[in-house]
Amino acid sequence: MNTDATGIAPRDERSLPGDDRVRLTDAASVELAVRLAGASGLARSSRAERGEWLVAIAEAVEAHRDELVALAEEETHLSAARLDGEVTRTATQLRFFAGVIAEGSYLEATIDSPDPSLVPPRPSLRRMLRPLGVVGVFAASNFPFAFSVLGGDTASALAAGCPVVVKAHPGHPRLSRRITEVAQAALAAAGGPAGALQLVEGMEAGIALVQHPAVTAVGFTGSTRGGRALFDLANARPEPIPFYGELGSLNPVVVTRGAIGGADGAAGIAAGLAGSFTRDGGQYCTKPGIVFVPEGAGFEAALVEALAGASPQRLLTDGIAAAFDRGSVELAERADVELVFGGERAGDVAAPVVVATGTSAFVAAREAFLEECFGPLTLLVKYADDKGLDAALAALEGSLTATIHHAPGEDVAELAAKLEPIAGRIVFNGWPTGVAIAWGQHHGGGWPASTASVHTSVGATAIRRWLTPVAWQDAPAEVLPAELADGNPLGVPRREDGVLRLG
Amino acid sequence: MNTDATGIAPRDERSLPGDDRVRLTDAASVELAVRLAGASGLARSSRAERGEWLVAIAEAVEAHRDELVALAEEETHLSAARLDGEVTRTATQLRFFAGVIAEGSYLEATIDSPDPSLVPPRPSLRRMLRPLGVVGVFAASNFPFAFSVLGGDTASALAAGCPVVVKAHPGHPRLSRRITEVAQAALAAAGGPAGALQLVEGMEAGIALVQHPAVTAVGFTGSTRGGRALFDLANARPEPIPFYGELGSLNPVVVTRGAIGGADGAAGIAAGLAGSFTRDGGQYCTKPGIVFVPEGAGFEAALVEALAGASPQRLLTDGIAAAFDRGSVELAERADVELVFGGERAGDVAAPVVVATGTSAFVAAREAFLEECFGPLTLLVKYADDKGLDAALAALEGSLTATIHHAPGEDVAELAAKLEPIAGRIVFNGWPTGVAIAWGQHHGGGWPASTASVHTSVGATAIRRWLTPVAWQDAPAEVLPAELADGNPLGVPRREDGVLRLG
Repeated sequence: MNTDATGIAPRDERSLPGDDRVRLTDAASVELAVRLAGASGLARSSRAERGEWLVAIAEAVEAHRDELVALAEEETHLSAARLDGEVTRTATQLRFFAGVIAEGSYLEATIDSPDPSLVPPRPSLRRMLRPLGVVGVFAASNFPFAFSVLGGDTASALAAGCPVVVKAHPGHPRLSRRITEVAQAALAAAGGPAGALQLVEGMEAGIALVQHPAVTAVGFTGSTRGGRALFDLANARPEPIPFYGELGSLNPVVVTRGAIGGADGAAGIAAGLAGSFTRDGGQYCTKPGIVFVPEGAGFEAALVEALAGASPQRLLTDGIAAAFDRGSVELAERADVELVFGGERAGDVAAPVVVATGTSAFVAAREAFLEECFGPLTLLVKYADDKGLDAALAALEGSLTATIHHAPGEDVAELAAKLEPIAGRIVFNGWPTGVAIAWGQHHGGGWPASTASVHTSVGATAIRRWLTPVAWQDAPAEVLPAELADGNPLGVPRREDGVLRLG
Repeated sequence: MNTDATGIAPRDERSLPGDDRVRLTDAASVELAVRLAGASGLARSSRAERGEWLVAIAEAVEAHRDELVALAEEETHLSAARLDGEVTRTATQLRFFAGVIAEGSYLEATIDSPDPSLVPPRPSLRRMLRPLGVVGVFAASNFPFAFSVLGGDTASALAAGCPVVVKAHPGHPRLSRRITEVAQAALAAAGGPAGALQLVEGMEAGIALVQHPAVTAVGFTGSTRGGRALFDLANARPEPIPFYGELGSLNPVVVTRGAIGGADGAAGIAAGLAGSFTRDGGQYCTKPGIVFVPEGAGFEAALVEALAGASPQRLLTDGIAAAFDRGSVELAERADVELVFGGERAGDVAAPVVVATGTSAFVAAREAFLEECFGPLTLLVKYADDKGLDAALAALEGSLTATIHHAPGEDVAELAAKLEPIAGRIVFNGWPTGVAIAWGQHHGGGWPASTASVHTSVGATAIRRWLTPVAWQDAPAEVLPAELADGNPLGVPRREDGVLRLG
């Protein structure tokens, strides 16, 4: 999704405000954080309690909205309007997961009654999902609220009953510390376990977190390089743990010839693309980074026109800005690439860049073109015919999204089927940025967009990553969780002797 | 669960019967198998079609029951009665997954209608699970039917719509080839894709299978060492894939003091244990391999008495027999271990072995005692008090099961809570062997019993391992799978605007 922590700030800048004895950056601080989180008692709480605590955190974040937005603006250079919307999104996510656990089907509660006539005979079996344990979450740079300390990974893990140790992103350290305090205070005020959320900082702490024996799973949003290194560490443990990472995504868009001749036409589609790939400096994991357009349909000219008024944006960190400059220059200077648009830069802000190539060149230099350039850049790949387009699509890797722009009534089922194996979400006549918070939402699409092909980091089932099944055989009633009790006193959806009942 | 392939038979013994040109053991044969599987078209089939094909395979296996049992008896030394029951189990599993996909909730079909009033606005989102692609399955030695070529991994993968390439277990090569032919013929006769099931053999082929770019996930049942090596290969790929392995399990049993004084008493519990750990030569992944018994309660004497009539069993392979001899002698010769029972051996059969130690010795030499000894051996750990018992339980690793024998009315909730983090299934006053086929069944428990803490290899949700979510945003109707169509024409359970409906 973006570049991860590589530099560690000096220790004396890393102490908690108001308490310069507390260090957050070394293995000892991870040991303390994991212990405090594990001892918080969150796993023993009820769904009703956790729902209240999530709402309390959401309310606290909203109550501190102005202070938090000001801090974030200073540290990330994102606009106050964007950050204000993101605070709302973050609170909505926390409330969404409160709703998910209240509804209860995420538990997969299942009851099989004994049947000695079967081969083999069936005892009483009752099964449901239980929290895994302490979870490590690596915050992202580009959503300082919604994919950071209190983002979707944290919200879904706390909802599941898993205490969370967050590794802060170095792009917004003061915001990370402050929002942790706000959340811990809200938990305590609501009678909840304030220790269930802990913060550590810096690369050394991040590595110790992934390797800590009591950490049971990791959520990560960041760069392919950093994510791969942590994925490898998680798997190299004596007892490996699941690593749910979102590492990078090109989000291909296919514009059909029919779409150019449709109502929106080249101008309409180009305007939409310009808005999507430059939005907030193009610093979205769902930014359309590669666009397949029909040759000779005038799309480049339309895009240049659409970008005339595009405003430059100072990028999140100096490291991201430098990587963007390097990546865009490398692409633009290639012999097989044409510079379509290079916006005027002013000082330390980044201006939009559009480069173009053909399908043969794209396939031939696949690896160079598949490297994500985080920031306001998109690559046009001009195709002459279906054969060229198909070859180029076959060269793609996993992506969070794929998008098709088509004419009304045009049959795109075959095209959609070709994109399905490499995209978690397929968008039609729209843009992949602006991820709705919904039960049906999904971030996936396979490596490198997702390290875990069978899971999602957004939408209701993101909670599934932090849960493990347990089955009880012939258990006395007092041993069973309330959701598995006779008569379904908590009214959760349950499968009883194979039949799903709504509860 | 058991020892995996280490020796590769000479190539000329490995050709398919009736066709000595076909080799199954090298990377080229894996390439062919994966291509044939991928080209089979299984992913495009409907759930109704796949259900019919699974039933057709079940019927074909039953129709060839006598021939297959005879082959299996010759290759595995298991009894005809046991193997006959296992054929029934295998057919039941295939039919069970036909039922699971007919019911349809495994798809997690989800529909969110557009709502522009939300922040961010919600488009039309429709989401469900889709087959991942070609799957690799490593067969086990100890269930030549139910965890082998047509075992639960294969049944659940085919049900999901994923073609399967099985790596045969070398303990029963002829059975593996023959049952593959039977299943392929049944698929073809039912109008299904015979190529959706492929067989390869030997370690070289197994490695190539895990590394093949078109293989999307792996299921494995075997040894901790072999499983770990393949797990590492799966994760070291340029694009890692999920590796679902079941590597080894001690299946601890705790006998409380109350249980000894209860109705069954020491004699009853000892008789149950003797039956469970010696069943079919103790060659079960759920064999109770470690039993915590109260000191001075006469349990050892009762167990010796219960084993008086135990019959020896020739083990599955010479390699397994040698490993059993080595493992049991190593344990029995330890200074901190007492030999409680060592049955009379006759020729190449293995007789039951019981060894005993104390809680302190167990904790002190944890690693030696945690090594699974596959075969008819169990270790008694005698505890003096709760403190000793707790320390020993804390030293355990993940296990498929944990069992508590207790008196009626005795409060074991706290004890069960201590076992929950390390056991996939908790059994009360029963034995872990004899795994029922049920929606509520589960194989898990964490490393090394399970490489994937959030998944199961038995029960209905075993299918979840071979599926990946896809979300369609604002999609034209003709692009959507029938399960997501307006009006729910296929009647699957769906979540519509957040509300679960039975369909």
